[in-house]
Amino acid sequence: MTPSRGRFRAPLDPDALTYSTSLPVDRRLYREDIAGSIAHARMLARRKIIPARDARRIVAALQEIEKEIAGGRLSLEGKGRGRHRMAADDIHMAIEQRLGEKLGPRAGMLHTARSRNDQIALDERLYLRSAVTGLFTRIRGLQAALVLLARRYEDVVMPGYTHLQRAQPVLVAHHLLAYVEMLDRDAARLTGMLPRIRQSPLGAAALAGTSFPIDRAGIAAALGFDGILANSIDAVSDRDLLIECVAACAIIMMHLSRLGEELVLWSSQEWGFVTIGDAFTTGSSIMPQKKNPDMAELVRGKTGRVYGDLVALLTLMKGLPLAYNRDMQEDKEPLFDAVDTSLASLQIMAKMLRTVAFRRDRFTRELEGDPFLATEIADYLVRKGMPFRTAHGITGEIVKTCVDAGRSLSGLTLRDFRGFAKQFDADVLRLLSPRTSLAAKRSAGSTAPALVRRALTQWERKLKRRR
Amino acid sequence: MTPSRGRFRAPLDPDALTYSTSLPVDRRLYREDIAGSIAHARMLARRKIIPARDARRIVAALQEIEKEIAGGRLSLEGKGRGRHRMAADDIHMAIEQRLGEKLGPRAGMLHTARSRNDQIALDERLYLRSAVTGLFTRIRGLQAALVLLARRYEDVVMPGYTHLQRAQPVLVAHHLLAYVEMLDRDAARLTGMLPRIRQSPLGAAALAGTSFPIDRAGIAAALGFDGILANSIDAVSDRDLLIECVAACAIIMMHLSRLGEELVLWSSQEWGFVTIGDAFTTGSSIMPQKKNPDMAELVRGKTGRVYGDLVALLTLMKGLPLAYNRDMQEDKEPLFDAVDTSLASLQIMAKMLRTVAFRRDRFTRELEGDPFLATEIADYLVRKGMPFRTAHGITGEIVKTCVDAGRSLSGLTLRDFRGFAKQFDADVLRLLSPRTSLAAKRSAGSTAPALVRRALTQWERKLKRRR
Amino acid sequence: MTPSRGRFRAPLDPDALTYSTSLPVDRRLYREDIAGSIAHARMLARRKIIPARDARRIVAALQEIEKEIAGGRLSLEGKGRGRHRMAADDIHMAIEQRLGEKLGPRAGMLHTARSRNDQIALDERLYLRSAVTGLFTRIRGLQAALVLLARRYEDVVMPGYTHLQRAQPVLVAHHLLAYVEMLDRDAARLTGMLPRIRQSPLGAAALAGTSFPIDRAGIAAALGFDGILANSIDAVSDRDLLIECVAACAIIMMHLSRLGEELVLWSSQEWGFVTIGDAFTTGSSIMPQKKNPDMAELVRGKTGRVYGDLVALLTLMKGLPLAYNRDMQEDKEPLFDAVDTSLASLQIMAKMLRTVAFRRDRFTRELEGDPFLATEIADYLVRKGMPFRTAHGITGEIVKTCVDAGRSLSGLTLRDFRGFAKQFDADVLRLLSPRTSLAAKRSAGSTAPALVRRALTQWERKLKRRR
Amino acid sequence: MTPSRGRFRAPLDPDALTYSTSLPVDRRLYREDIAGSIAHARMLARRKIIPARDARRIVAALQEIEKEIAGGRLSLEGKGRGRHRMAADDIHMAIEQRLGEKLGPRAGMLHTARSRNDQIALDERLYLRSAVTGLFTRIRGLQAALVLLARRYEDVVMPGYTHLQRAQPVLVAHHLLAYVEMLDRDAARLTGMLPRIRQSPLGAAALAGTSFPIDRAGIAAALGFDGILANSIDAVSDRDLLIECVAACAIIMMHLSRLGEELVLWSSQEWGFVTIGDAFTTGSSIMPQKKNPDMAELVRGKTGRVYGDLVALLTLMKGLPLAYNRDMQEDKEPLFDAVDTSLASLQIMAKMLRTVAFRRDRFTRELEGDPFLATEIADYLVRKGMPFRTAHGITGEIVKTCVDAGRSLSGLTLRDFRGFAKQFDADVLRLLSPRTSLAAKRSAGSTAPALVRRALTQWERKLKRRR
Repeated sequence: MTPSRGRFRAPLDPDALTYSTSLPVDRRLYREDIAGSIAHARMLARRKIIPARDARRIVAALQEIEKEIAGGRLSLEGKGRGRHRMAADDIHMAIEQRLGEKLGPRAGMLHTARSRNDQIALDERLYLRSAVTGLFTRIRGLQAALVLLARRYEDVVMPGYTHLQRAQPVLVAHHLLAYVEMLDRDAARLTGMLPRIRQSPLGAAALAGTSFPIDRAGIAAALGFDGILANSIDAVSDRDLLIECVAACAIIMMHLSRLGEELVLWSSQEWGFVTIGDAFTTGSSIMPQKKNPDMAELVRGKTGRVYGDLVALLTLMKGLPLAYNRDMQEDKEPLFDAVDTSLASLQIMAKMLRTVAFRRDRFTRELEGDPFLATEIADYLVRKGMPFRTAHGITGEIVKTCVDAGRSLSGLTLRDFRGFAKQFDADVLRLLSPRTSLAAKRSAGSTAPALVRRALTQWERKLKRRR
Repeated sequence: MTPSRGRFRAPLDPDALTYSTSLPVDRRLYREDIAGSIAHARMLARRKIIPARDARRIVAALQEIEKEIAGGRLSLEGKGRGRHRMAADDIHMAIEQRLGEKLGPRAGMLHTARSRNDQIALDERLYLRSAVTGLFTRIRGLQAALVLLARRYEDVVMPGYTHLQRAQPVLVAHHLLAYVEMLDRDAARLTGMLPRIRQSPLGAAALAGTSFPIDRAGIAAALGFDGILANSIDAVSDRDLLIECVAACAIIMMHLSRLGEELVLWSSQEWGFVTIGDAFTTGSSIMPQKKNPDMAELVRGKTGRVYGDLVALLTLMKGLPLAYNRDMQEDKEPLFDAVDTSLASLQIMAKMLRTVAFRRDRFTRELEGDPFLATEIADYLVRKGMPFRTAHGITGEIVKTCVDAGRSLSGLTLRDFRGFAKQFDADVLRLLSPRTSLAAKRSAGSTAPALVRRALTQWERKLKRRR
Repeated sequence: MTPSRGRFRAPLDPDALTYSTSLPVDRRLYREDIAGSIAHARMLARRKIIPARDARRIVAALQEIEKEIAGGRLSLEGKGRGRHRMAADDIHMAIEQRLGEKLGPRAGMLHTARSRNDQIALDERLYLRSAVTGLFTRIRGLQAALVLLARRYEDVVMPGYTHLQRAQPVLVAHHLLAYVEMLDRDAARLTGMLPRIRQSPLGAAALAGTSFPIDRAGIAAALGFDGILANSIDAVSDRDLLIECVAACAIIMMHLSRLGEELVLWSSQEWGFVTIGDAFTTGSSIMPQKKNPDMAELVRGKTGRVYGDLVALLTLMKGLPLAYNRDMQEDKEPLFDAVDTSLASLQIMAKMLRTVAFRRDRFTRELEGDPFLATEIADYLVRKGMPFRTAHGITGEIVKTCVDAGRSLSGLTLRDFRGFAKQFDADVLRLLSPRTSLAAKRSAGSTAPALVRRALTQWERKLKRRR
Repeated sequence: MTPSRGRFRAPLDPDALTYSTSLPVDRRLYREDIAGSIAHARMLARRKIIPARDARRIVAALQEIEKEIAGGRLSLEGKGRGRHRMAADDIHMAIEQRLGEKLGPRAGMLHTARSRNDQIALDERLYLRSAVTGLFTRIRGLQAALVLLARRYEDVVMPGYTHLQRAQPVLVAHHLLAYVEMLDRDAARLTGMLPRIRQSPLGAAALAGTSFPIDRAGIAAALGFDGILANSIDAVSDRDLLIECVAACAIIMMHLSRLGEELVLWSSQEWGFVTIGDAFTTGSSIMPQKKNPDMAELVRGKTGRVYGDLVALLTLMKGLPLAYNRDMQEDKEPLFDAVDTSLASLQIMAKMLRTVAFRRDRFTRELEGDPFLATEIADYLVRKGMPFRTAHGITGEIVKTCVDAGRSLSGLTLRDFRGFAKQFDADVLRLLSPRTSLAAKRSAGSTAPALVRRALTQWERKLKRRR
């Protein structure tokens, strides 16, 4: 935040000014800052700390300034093209200076019973509140895109993987719904923060509170908060909610990086499973045939910057004595970057998914009789009364024999099976198809087609309801 | 997790075994693993998937094994001093092997309709549930220690700092309560996770669910969960809750590192403000006079390892395709380390605080008339009708004059004050004491002694109630 | 990097364009990009791959474009105020497009035997080369500022601290020279990278090399490199040098954060040891008396962003298959940020140090007979033949007695000393002064005044020589 | 490090002891610690600071202690099974205590002119020196395994990828050699540290040096160092070399994670390109057919922990005032973990690669006439005089036509080609094979078979020489 140079003889060194200005970063908080100032001015008047008439003028002027900034008519950087020039170094001082130009010394009344310490803490909470809401909405949007895609391909079978080895057949829709569930926890993490966010720090002043008879609860209510922070030192010292928000963003990006990785894999020639729309892929400057899944790669790559933002914030706050320290000015850039990156990544992923086409028949033939259906055989033997571990061992032998002979499981006859265990009957031969495997699933949350369809319907309803 | 070597010709390379074994790390999950297995066995019998008699034997044997491990009679590492030797490489296989020694092939029934993928996911959620509870309890303990200390020194004044410069007088109790508030948000962050934690993954099997008619909800209820995870692939693929928990630990440690820093500062000769008990300080191998605040330093230093744990987990999960990948085995060490470090740090801090003594008179004389009371003068002028910014400017002049002359504010006469602004009356001279400044505070959450006492009482009640 | 849309039917989605454009970030590489293109064009002509006349035109046009950009006459963003508009999305395409405007289809010759993959790898190495040099120069500047300050206060004694407890007396100059040494390792780390940096990737093309008879070594020499990277896939796939550079920046910032912390401590009222010039300190918006060490705090705080940059880059590159992946576009922002932040922090610290004044007499009285001279007593006993541990124990008793009695060591008589050990003679009383302690030091690298003066002279010479 | 409790009334709290002991971690430094102590004792005698006879006894006893620890006869933890019990809390005190048991008070002479501060700094540098050498050797081992594998499959063609899309044909050997080059920079990074590591801190004592006439250079030489650290405060305050070493490990792991990722991809059923030996793969507890590339996954996953170690160390050191702070005790665990993990990962990767088999014919048919040969066509047109960008555009049209028609490039006739550009002659048809593409490469470092063979030979020589 900006210095005030009351008792100083020398101006701030120009390099120091450049090094320390936060205006290029915090200028985007102008709406939050003005909203807080308006609520503060009104409260000061209500409590008769400043004359009502002055408060009205201040409010009107602040509303003008908001329009000037929004309309690009007020350059905050102080060298701008706009009509009005400024040379403040944070958003609070920039607005205060403009207010001074409009109202003269009377503008100075606004800062009564307030410090930039509680002012920025308020701005950040207002920002967090809308960031959380914005992220929530984008998560819902991506969930909707996933559900739509899942519905479109609800009957397509793919290999489910563990260790990137084919493990068991699953429905594409079931796989996509796994991401819907992950994102739902992301959404819950965000909304779970709201009660902590909606506590107003305003009135903590520099750190100790104030001797003016202010109405902290009144301001909080006016700004749509649930209440006030109970301790003035805490109100201006902590930045834990910023870290919590960026940690939630890091987890979102972790989730998206996994989806990004899968889209990259699936659109490789080796997988040949999905095509991403031209509007979300790019070519090469040298290789004319390329169709690259750039957006999926960038989502994956941008995960790194959000992880970095989290580390930046954690490092920043480590070991700082109370209350405000100038180090804390560095809190906004990683916060904004993490939120912006997450918002944009959620959006791009949702838009891109709308252009994704699965090759329905990609695995149809390949999975018939594939050794990855071996679990079915083991489960079959268990149903015949064999302990699972024994059944697992016998099935391992069967698979080894097939793999050695270069045969698929479908190539085995009942006689072959009986060679391994007398419990096998003719019905074992019907097991060796992905569709049979899917249909046999009975557990809640499994990839059984009927259950997956039901899950799709539930999600469709839930997402429609919340919109 | 351990391999199963059914179709393999060669044993695992010994270096590969050492490299990949998780038993030294996950062995501490034996209680969770056995609890899950018992619930699973009972459900299998209830659903008639395995005979009730076998289930009873399995349950009994598992209970024996738990006692063997708890009693140190079963060495899980396979070379131990205990009565029984094992050579498994994760806790699931270690227990299963021992079960096999006890029950023969029948033991193999337990693994029906289950995979180590959902098994470890369950163990981790059981662990998280108790970790969160444990952390919550320790937070309450540290809050109690802070409140006790605050109450003991409720009338002691200290300088409140911003930028580590004296800013305004505050009560020590008010400063300590700031930490109580921070920790309360930490507690809320943890309990906010519980609804996400208490969803059972068991029954997801490898990733696709199972064809056995299992009762996922029944197991979940038996284990005290609220419900089941809705998607089998998600149930075994994600580790977001571990990251969320470690992020919460990182924020806790960030908070503790700030308290640690302050204890280090306050116990320096320059501050000379607190003495930490001998039981929590150490001497030097070379300098006999030293009394070092080692525990406060270590709390601060151990913050780094928890931040590192968070980065380890985030990195681990970045870009992994669904479902289980062996990389994920590396999730437990950072989780355990973060939780253990946070638990121990919360405890040490609480115990240490009980031995902390503040030097009550440390600042008494030093703060009388100190320039850091200047805010009072500015506020005084505002109450006389001057806009705050103007008042701030005039006060800056007064301070500059004092600092230049090497005088304190108390050295100024009414005449001196009037030289700066005619609004000054004799009552300004009464302002220049920390106690007056404190008593004048009127805003909610401020350091006004009456408000701080009330906050102390509220916390005392709240902490008593929750115990 | 930018897509080329040869075979695509749909244009890139506008949000995808915004999400994926790197121009706002990589535009600052325009000099490097043009230098590489000029060297490439000349080589193509020399090897008769393109006509010499065309190469000359291309070179001339590129030189014009460099001037246009430097002069602000060419807006790279494509919507700019400049004379020429563009709509490329990386710096390579932006320059290529402008070249096309100037030369028509002939401009397309430049991209022969080259890909943006090796082009950006080259640009980055050219950038790294100058970044390393720039950082080296700034380190020398900060070392010079430290040596100057140390020389100015070469006779001032301060307590040396361990655990932030007074440990033994040291010279301020000795303390400051510790930072000079740290920074010297930083400088060595940077210059040690140069042989790795100065290997040209150009000619690796997309990843496999090219069928044109290019002269990689010739281009490398023309650009001042030592040689060429030996493997074309490696040349375009790796980003380890960026990580190495950012890791070196992180260590620099770690060092500066420690100096920043000390300046914050020393300028607190409790230490009262240094005054930082007005041009590098700021006041408060609410507290008129404040003089805050903002620059020292910001240096400390900005450490976090560089740590974050390092994590961003490491995360980015984790698990990426060869060769180029679009994720790697995200490599530049953390690199630039880390280098910029380190450069600015080194500079601000150097400038600020020139305004720092130590209070010469701050510790003079306080340290006489201070218990922290106890090591002298222990060493005295050792010289009298006592094993160190025994001496250490006895000295501990002496200190305890003093501390309990609230006395300084100077208050002890010879008789008092003899009460602890008969080896004490009258000369022990002369030990109890910081100056005596300093003068007694005999080991190389110690704080003995003569050795510190010699070290200062050596550094003055070394820094003068290198300038 | 351990406290010394000379002037303390109360023993250390048991929880505080557990919290602060470093013995379980630093005990592995016993060889380094003893080597340093022996050199120190000999120097003390040489300089007549302690009697030669005592020094000899101390040295002999230290050598015995080393054997006791190595032989498991001395339990350092103080509750051990060994013959001798101890209760120290760091390795220095543990050894000193044992020395005291052997020699009585005379043992206390060893600590003359030394502190644990310079002692641990020395131990760490001795450790770093051997860690760097160990890592270097393991890197050479992995390079050798890669070169061996590359030689075995020197004629096998694979698609080179960018964006994980097939880009251009390359030799498997060329691809593997890219890793050899990366690792070579890793090796250079490590050896580049050695001059910084080989500077002895011993003699810095607590922080200020000592009044005993010690011979720092002599000890340094005895321990095989190049010289001494020039400033005693710096010698005990900094940990930059640990961070540098862990950063180098992080880059090594980043490289290995990429190789791990590729092995996972290549051994998927979709790629079907490599088989990893049974001794380095595992099966599933539920799916009998699985053969999982666990070691490759674990290498990738363990990257996270090394990144975390780096963050832990950087965080730890941020903002610490000089000189030693107890926080710094936490430096060893991340260092050891990063080095151990890197050593083990390098070894496992080397051993695993010896069991890797490539399917030689995997891509033979698939790549004939594949659109990914399009670059050849574009280059062909350039050689016919067309600017590259124009050629690139035309080739894009050709590819689009093929893709739309579901044809390969080989399916095109000369007439088809002429339909796109009249410059095409019959020789264009010969281009459409991967082998032709490889053979046509002419640039240094390209994938041209002759060049790759030469590179292999050079590496074979270099690796043999260095062994």
